[in-house]
Amino acid sequence: MALPTPSTTTAAALYTRYRAVRQATMQLVSPLSPEDLMVQSCPEASPVKWHLAHTSWFFETFVLSEFLAGYRPFHPDFRWLFNSYYNSLGEMPEKKLRSSFSRPPLEAIFAYRAHVDGAIESLLQHPAGDEAARRIVLGLEHEQQHQELIATDIKHAFFTNPLHPAYRGPAFAKPEALIAPPLEWVDFSAGLVEIGVTPSPNSIDAFAFDNETPRHRVYLEPFRLATRLVTCAEYLAFIDQNGYNRPELWLAEGWSIIRSESWQAPLYWRRDEATNSGWSIFTLHGFQSLDDLSETPVCHLSFFEADAYARWAGFRLASEFEWEHAATTAPPTKANMLETGALHPTPAHALSGLQQIYGDVWEWTASAYTGYPGYKPLPGALGEYNGKFMSSQMVLRGGSCVTPATHIRATYRNFFSPATRWQFSGLRLAQDAPR
Amino acid sequence: MALPTPSTTTAAALYTRYRAVRQATMQLVSPLSPEDLMVQSCPEASPVKWHLAHTSWFFETFVLSEFLAGYRPFHPDFRWLFNSYYNSLGEMPEKKLRSSFSRPPLEAIFAYRAHVDGAIESLLQHPAGDEAARRIVLGLEHEQQHQELIATDIKHAFFTNPLHPAYRGPAFAKPEALIAPPLEWVDFSAGLVEIGVTPSPNSIDAFAFDNETPRHRVYLEPFRLATRLVTCAEYLAFIDQNGYNRPELWLAEGWSIIRSESWQAPLYWRRDEATNSGWSIFTLHGFQSLDDLSETPVCHLSFFEADAYARWAGFRLASEFEWEHAATTAPPTKANMLETGALHPTPAHALSGLQQIYGDVWEWTASAYTGYPGYKPLPGALGEYNGKFMSSQMVLRGGSCVTPATHIRATYRNFFSPATRWQFSGLRLAQDAPR
Amino acid sequence: MALPTPSTTTAAALYTRYRAVRQATMQLVSPLSPEDLMVQSCPEASPVKWHLAHTSWFFETFVLSEFLAGYRPFHPDFRWLFNSYYNSLGEMPEKKLRSSFSRPPLEAIFAYRAHVDGAIESLLQHPAGDEAARRIVLGLEHEQQHQELIATDIKHAFFTNPLHPAYRGPAFAKPEALIAPPLEWVDFSAGLVEIGVTPSPNSIDAFAFDNETPRHRVYLEPFRLATRLVTCAEYLAFIDQNGYNRPELWLAEGWSIIRSESWQAPLYWRRDEATNSGWSIFTLHGFQSLDDLSETPVCHLSFFEADAYARWAGFRLASEFEWEHAATTAPPTKANMLETGALHPTPAHALSGLQQIYGDVWEWTASAYTGYPGYKPLPGALGEYNGKFMSSQMVLRGGSCVTPATHIRATYRNFFSPATRWQFSGLRLAQDAPR
Amino acid sequence: MALPTPSTTTAAALYTRYRAVRQATMQLVSPLSPEDLMVQSCPEASPVKWHLAHTSWFFETFVLSEFLAGYRPFHPDFRWLFNSYYNSLGEMPEKKLRSSFSRPPLEAIFAYRAHVDGAIESLLQHPAGDEAARRIVLGLEHEQQHQELIATDIKHAFFTNPLHPAYRGPAFAKPEALIAPPLEWVDFSAGLVEIGVTPSPNSIDAFAFDNETPRHRVYLEPFRLATRLVTCAEYLAFIDQNGYNRPELWLAEGWSIIRSESWQAPLYWRRDEATNSGWSIFTLHGFQSLDDLSETPVCHLSFFEADAYARWAGFRLASEFEWEHAATTAPPTKANMLETGALHPTPAHALSGLQQIYGDVWEWTASAYTGYPGYKPLPGALGEYNGKFMSSQMVLRGGSCVTPATHIRATYRNFFSPATRWQFSGLRLAQDAPR
Repeated sequence: MALPTPSTTTAAALYTRYRAVRQATMQLVSPLSPEDLMVQSCPEASPVKWHLAHTSWFFETFVLSEFLAGYRPFHPDFRWLFNSYYNSLGEMPEKKLRSSFSRPPLEAIFAYRAHVDGAIESLLQHPAGDEAARRIVLGLEHEQQHQELIATDIKHAFFTNPLHPAYRGPAFAKPEALIAPPLEWVDFSAGLVEIGVTPSPNSIDAFAFDNETPRHRVYLEPFRLATRLVTCAEYLAFIDQNGYNRPELWLAEGWSIIRSESWQAPLYWRRDEATNSGWSIFTLHGFQSLDDLSETPVCHLSFFEADAYARWAGFRLASEFEWEHAATTAPPTKANMLETGALHPTPAHALSGLQQIYGDVWEWTASAYTGYPGYKPLPGALGEYNGKFMSSQMVLRGGSCVTPATHIRATYRNFFSPATRWQFSGLRLAQDAPR
Repeated sequence: MALPTPSTTTAAALYTRYRAVRQATMQLVSPLSPEDLMVQSCPEASPVKWHLAHTSWFFETFVLSEFLAGYRPFHPDFRWLFNSYYNSLGEMPEKKLRSSFSRPPLEAIFAYRAHVDGAIESLLQHPAGDEAARRIVLGLEHEQQHQELIATDIKHAFFTNPLHPAYRGPAFAKPEALIAPPLEWVDFSAGLVEIGVTPSPNSIDAFAFDNETPRHRVYLEPFRLATRLVTCAEYLAFIDQNGYNRPELWLAEGWSIIRSESWQAPLYWRRDEATNSGWSIFTLHGFQSLDDLSETPVCHLSFFEADAYARWAGFRLASEFEWEHAATTAPPTKANMLETGALHPTPAHALSGLQQIYGDVWEWTASAYTGYPGYKPLPGALGEYNGKFMSSQMVLRGGSCVTPATHIRATYRNFFSPATRWQFSGLRLAQDAPR
Repeated sequence: MALPTPSTTTAAALYTRYRAVRQATMQLVSPLSPEDLMVQSCPEASPVKWHLAHTSWFFETFVLSEFLAGYRPFHPDFRWLFNSYYNSLGEMPEKKLRSSFSRPPLEAIFAYRAHVDGAIESLLQHPAGDEAARRIVLGLEHEQQHQELIATDIKHAFFTNPLHPAYRGPAFAKPEALIAPPLEWVDFSAGLVEIGVTPSPNSIDAFAFDNETPRHRVYLEPFRLATRLVTCAEYLAFIDQNGYNRPELWLAEGWSIIRSESWQAPLYWRRDEATNSGWSIFTLHGFQSLDDLSETPVCHLSFFEADAYARWAGFRLASEFEWEHAATTAPPTKANMLETGALHPTPAHALSGLQQIYGDVWEWTASAYTGYPGYKPLPGALGEYNGKFMSSQMVLRGGSCVTPATHIRATYRNFFSPATRWQFSGLRLAQDAPR
Repeated sequence: MALPTPSTTTAAALYTRYRAVRQATMQLVSPLSPEDLMVQSCPEASPVKWHLAHTSWFFETFVLSEFLAGYRPFHPDFRWLFNSYYNSLGEMPEKKLRSSFSRPPLEAIFAYRAHVDGAIESLLQHPAGDEAARRIVLGLEHEQQHQELIATDIKHAFFTNPLHPAYRGPAFAKPEALIAPPLEWVDFSAGLVEIGVTPSPNSIDAFAFDNETPRHRVYLEPFRLATRLVTCAEYLAFIDQNGYNRPELWLAEGWSIIRSESWQAPLYWRRDEATNSGWSIFTLHGFQSLDDLSETPVCHLSFFEADAYARWAGFRLASEFEWEHAATTAPPTKANMLETGALHPTPAHALSGLQQIYGDVWEWTASAYTGYPGYKPLPGALGEYNGKFMSSQMVLRGGSCVTPATHIRATYRNFFSPATRWQFSGLRLAQDAPR
């Protein structure tokens, strides 16, 4: 596992980590107004205000109500109001109604967060039991997932706003020196490899979601993986060579979607005659010319676009097993993740060997999201966290430029419907090696 | 015409009226938070924030830009951003995108209002020309329409919110003394009557929308009109006698809608076992027991429900011509309109003769909304105000409890699609009289 | 009334008429295969096979079951299977399921028709009572309506078939001599006129649907009506001058539909570079060049297109009352109706005065379809025939080239949703006359 | 591979097989009328008439046009008219339009079949080249797939028809003696197994679709497979214990579908108070009481229902690799496939060991349908046959009671969207074995 997880073996250390994660959330929303926090601009997204409440709800529901004696919930209605999708806990509002949550007011949500924070502090005054600690860690990983969602949802909200405001000040200057190095290949030989994580009931240091378990063997044929991600310039060639209009390049489902949705480019690309490339791209810094972003990894692709690009290029996507096997051998590199503040993918470095494994963009894999052999969801309502989504979705690996660095690892499995584009999702090429 | 229009023949008087209407809007939104102003809970509604901007846009576009020399628009983007549906003025954002307008921030909208108010004040320092004055009056009538929409849209927003907050403090006490008097009939004889308004190009006192013109003759057969509106108690009998499940009572289009939408009661009615009647009703004061509202006029009916009720009761709806003819003869009564602060229909008084002609609820008529013989829309973009909606809509008459009192008159024609329920819409019974 | 209705005062005469109408239906379907009779190509249409059965069902249900002692229904399931929309008679299959009615086989449907025909013959061996006779006449008018629907539905079915087969042999030769005469105007003065029909309970000669009753007075302002229908050549000028892309010409609802449906021409028009005009039109004789049809009345327009054309031309549509008043004064002309076999509109004649009042195309009026003052639907299930459709539809007048000649009259009210185009629907221009 | 493929190494043998398959298709449609062949009752289905034409089109396009010198296509329009989804060959009609193909008439389709049959006969007068022979075999396998679709599509068509006719005479008598034996388990140990087929370019005997290639290694953990399929009686217990209303049993996507579609039982099950079980089931023999079918394998399940049932029962579905590995070891048993004429699943036999591997119902697996490592689609348009559907679908194995016996094998991969129910699809239970 390439990225270290901070030690949380003691209650104090755990509380330190708790405060860091919670504050990171507040930091992330600090540029936003109460009105910004209300916007829900597509079915995939939620208002940021809801994310602030729901992440607190998670600690209240799965930690405080169970492990803090005498805990008094902040408000009885919040129990159902901010439930996302845990049917085992009872009824909840339809997702699309979240945009109507002008009440409770934002101050109440902030008070809710403070209330929960205080209670967690109380709980961690003394060594919490293993299960409580594990739940807190789970809550922190959960909150980090919502940090990423806050970034992607507000990006979509600002793109939907006809004025296209920027989340953060003027765009960074064009990184002129950075030219993505030529795409090269790293070879991996055939063999049985171990994939996933053995559940470790007594450890909170080595966190993993249930969908990463159990560790099991997979046989891999020999394969090659590209050293870096596909860039905007490379993807533009696919567009310019009519890639969106050649059915033989597309899965049937993808072809149907690009026809019905009239997709001719990634999400957030807009024709712009004022640029050399003919395109501008909406970023969290507002619209920027593709001229300045051509060496950055292409993102906001659906699986279908990633797959079609790979076919057009004469290659394919990696399976999630190939990816994980390669990632465990990858040397650590300075990853562009949420903490860099770039908030957008950045060009690969002039290095040899695998890079951009973590950060920049989630990499679509060729693997459908299903349970590993022997997979058991967590008991109780938490079993709904991951397991019930194991149909009609594809696995993505590696995190993005808005994923917190401490949240990602080689075994991490993200998953979305193959038509999803509002995440920072891109691709790395793979190919079969001669057997 | 039962209600007087305040004199606005001088610039000073016009400015006085301008300030009163504009302040009434601000008064109306004063209980609401910036977050409340963002909610758009159904396709018919807009965020209140948008209403605040659009009403100012109307003055800027149709008055200041044309009649105030040297006027500088508040912001160039606002010209298209807050256009509602005037295609002649160019492109505009789709209606559903209004919920994404977190920017410009609310303070900018308030500044926009102040900017426009100051410019109107400048314009009215000196006598404005007739056309400018007429446009200002049109803008005020327009703003009053949006005052009503603010009330209805925020009611729907708060109903959609799973917490069902109230717009205004605790509900008024049960009006125990008020029992609706028995429904009686007023007779009208046959004959040619005059309907509508003659356009009066040089007057600003007698405002009318273009769809009320020209005055023309209509032949009426003898008819009878009920003295008061239909009450909740009366409508409950229709529900209890299975009215929503008897196809013979319904127009085919209405039957199809109540099946597909599973309507079994007016909008805002909810089963409530804690009440004697078995129902509670959501109001701008929150949910209230139907027990306390049974004598109030039923509202939030679609045309189809009003029509089905009338058929079930053995009567019919009035045509808009019958209604207008009757209204011109109706003695003025104390109408329950926006200024009373009731914000909900109130029971009829123990009086004889026609009452509740104005206020309480808009009365669905049996008339489709089409142009009068010889109808000409206003010239230019303002011609889109009313005329282009003359298909597939029904006329409503008389204003509601959230219509400003100075906005309504006997000739006023409101119009909505027959399935619309989010307005305060109810009915008065009519019947043929023997010829 | 311009067209005479054949005398049916005696049972024998009535049976003669019955046989003629029923045979006309069979004649109409004679060019069609059992497979053709199965096609249902749009929600408005039904399979022709269904029409054959349903028209027989009407006689069985409303005549034979009530008036022929000892009548044995052909098959108990047919009672509900071939009910169209009479809720009072119980449940019925959804309309869209009619395309699954491969069973009962066509032979059974023919046997059903023969069974009903035999029973009607028995019933009319002796003088039938007045009500039975009236019901038979109603059934014949009903069957004539379905004759028109058979023609329009099979036209749509053949257009939907990618091979675009023709219903009838090679297209008629280009009527070179026929050039539509210049459009002129006929003036009508203001006044109270009588509209509609007095129900005549004891007569079967002067049939009228309930929606044509009662006869009542309407005041008309002075108006002018065009002498002939609008031609394809005239409509092409509207297209060529960008009529489909100028929002100011359209009702808002119409504009929305032409955008979402991408309408740029009437239904059945197809771009065709092989023609001078650039268009071909699908007819019951297959595709024909617009070059050969330019002087024929334009048809397959929605109300919105008819209305927009009239506005573009500087005129308007007539109200249904203006039309009816004019039609009663129109001299009889040789109308192009179903019996001519043209099966498509033909050019106006070189005559002065009103023509094409009957036949060629249904004329959209400016009138919404509502009940006349004092309107009472027929009692019982037959009350569902017309009355329940009185919302969100517009009135059309005058019949078309596929309307049987004996079916139409000055007071006849056809009605469709304003977006409907699969009928032979076009327009005649009208305008206000100086008062 | 458990089932032998008839030898087709010589042209004569190949022609014999060709005739047998083509005649089997004609035999299958012999109980149907021309009208029956027109019905298309759901988006998944096609009219049987279309199947008759399309299977001929396949031979014409991929065999005759390429390999028979001087071949003259039957009709130039058929080239595009009966193309299903091969974009490489040009435009084709939308699938939903197939129900409008009343022309060409059925006789023309039969003539088309005869024309193609004659040309194949000519081609096979002499030894055809290897590729031609392989294409003919592919065409026969293709036609066998459409034989299954004819059976499933006509079943749905007859179920949609409100009269619910039977495809074949009276239902078979209740198989009283047949009681499904107790469900037992067969153990399989862990290890690397070989899955799939090595492409064998020079052989036509060992046919496999491209999606079954290449043969590759998969590591299996130890597992157990149920000896027989799940029965209706067992599934009824799941229904009776509220299985359709317990969200914790369902994948989120499945839960959403059963809510929106109101599914409470498999497709074709209908409440029937006249039976002991309370249910009847529609079969190709018409409706039959579940009382008589309780020991037969449950079918017409979606993947979601199969998955939920397995979870409820405490087990899981097998992966397609577990299934294939087990199937290769299964002793051949008398399979209930198309040739038995049962046309419905039949009870398991009183035998020990794996049975019902082939026939009865397609078995949903836990495996998403993706390409095997190293998978290459066929070159050219035939590459669209299988490969482009590799997203959002699940693999089914083993064939059904309407699959031709010579069409199935251990490596065969069927695939459908997880919500699909109109196929004869059911399940076999699996579980992890202790490691």
